[in-house]
Amino acid sequence: MKTERSKVKRIPKRGFYDKETVYAILDKEFICQIGFVHEGHPIVIPTIYGRKDDTLYFHGASVSRMLQSMEKGIPVSINVTRTNALVLARSAFHHSLNYESVSLFGTASLIDDDKEKLRALHIISDQILTERWEEVREPNQKELNVTKVLQLKIEEGSAKIRNEGVGDDKEDYKLDIWAGIVPIETSYGKAIDDGRLKPGVSISNSVKKIENKKI
Amino acid sequence: MKTERSKVKRIPKRGFYDKETVYAILDKEFICQIGFVHEGHPIVIPTIYGRKDDTLYFHGASVSRMLQSMEKGIPVSINVTRTNALVLARSAFHHSLNYESVSLFGTASLIDDDKEKLRALHIISDQILTERWEEVREPNQKELNVTKVLQLKIEEGSAKIRNEGVGDDKEDYKLDIWAGIVPIETSYGKAIDDGRLKPGVSISNSVKKIENKKI
Repeated sequence: MKTERSKVKRIPKRGFYDKETVYAILDKEFICQIGFVHEGHPIVIPTIYGRKDDTLYFHGASVSRMLQSMEKGIPVSINVTRTNALVLARSAFHHSLNYESVSLFGTASLIDDDKEKLRALHIISDQILTERWEEVREPNQKELNVTKVLQLKIEEGSAKIRNEGVGDDKEDYKLDIWAGIVPIETSYGKAIDDGRLKPGVSISNSVKKIENKKI
Repeated sequence: MKTERSKVKRIPKRGFYDKETVYAILDKEFICQIGFVHEGHPIVIPTIYGRKDDTLYFHGASVSRMLQSMEKGIPVSINVTRTNALVLARSAFHHSLNYESVSLFGTASLIDDDKEKLRALHIISDQILTERWEEVREPNQKELNVTKVLQLKIEEGSAKIRNEGVGDDKEDYKLDIWAGIVPIETSYGKAIDDGRLKPGVSISNSVKKIENKKI
């Protein structure tokens, strides 16, 4: 990955710096790792996100450490990575992975306004499961008060993608070693209700759409 | 996650601080996010790792940024997260995920000795695909020279696991809303050879063992 910040260009750009590529990867996932500096030391935590236009949203207690230090915003680094295949070469050296990865840099800040908070929570909910928000009880004022929401304007970042076969050294192709790729697939399984459904309640549309589907 | 470093206890301890729990999660995965501070800013990059005993190993160009700044070692934070299920409640507020996550802190350092480097690369290879190392051509001296290997002694860290059903507010159970969990499953698909196998070469044992298996 282009981790040298000097090498990371602003979005939009061509290739792996264009919004389309970066957002397409972000939109396939809903968990990121967010890094920040606390007392000179790095901290990396996993958290849920939602993207809408050029903004990422985060919420909840998982980011509360950051939120504490966040009067005017703190610099964060975000990574989202999908691993799509093992790439198994004839030499140990040329083994690799096929993957899609996004790195973003920016300054996260707190959202104070309740209406904006609700909108951000809706976006995060949609990122995980489209239409679920419309099916459930919305947060009440008490719940909203204890929920912290962060936003990060996506201005600096890049995507890195490997989507290739095996690349062995010329002389290694004569070796009697199997080489190829093994795809990695993630999918939703069968939904399991919580055993406390009201009589007559059937599975939600949002859930029906993802059951047994690839992610 | 217990991201406050002051709250993160040394391994071994009980509960989510015991080696057994932490290592069991680490051993299911091979990609982590590693965070470090560069010129005062956080950087988070994905990288492959291998664990053996109380040490994590990393390699390659993906960590080269760190390696540059690493004369005597730099502090890093590592996170590994598996997401196992969507937890869909009747209220937006009580939606959650089932997951297993490990956070580690420490100082990574470079391995110079070639024999140690080879051993570390073998460990990383085993983390991804057991027995593959024995099937392929080992790194030669030239390859070893351009491969950088890092080690991190696992001394400080914790695991966080959520593996529960829905927890709704009492009054919400009367709502006509479906609630439950949707498992998330990751598996290897069918292996695809690279089309350049020597005649008579059949699929490797290491690959046969993971084909169409859950990860």
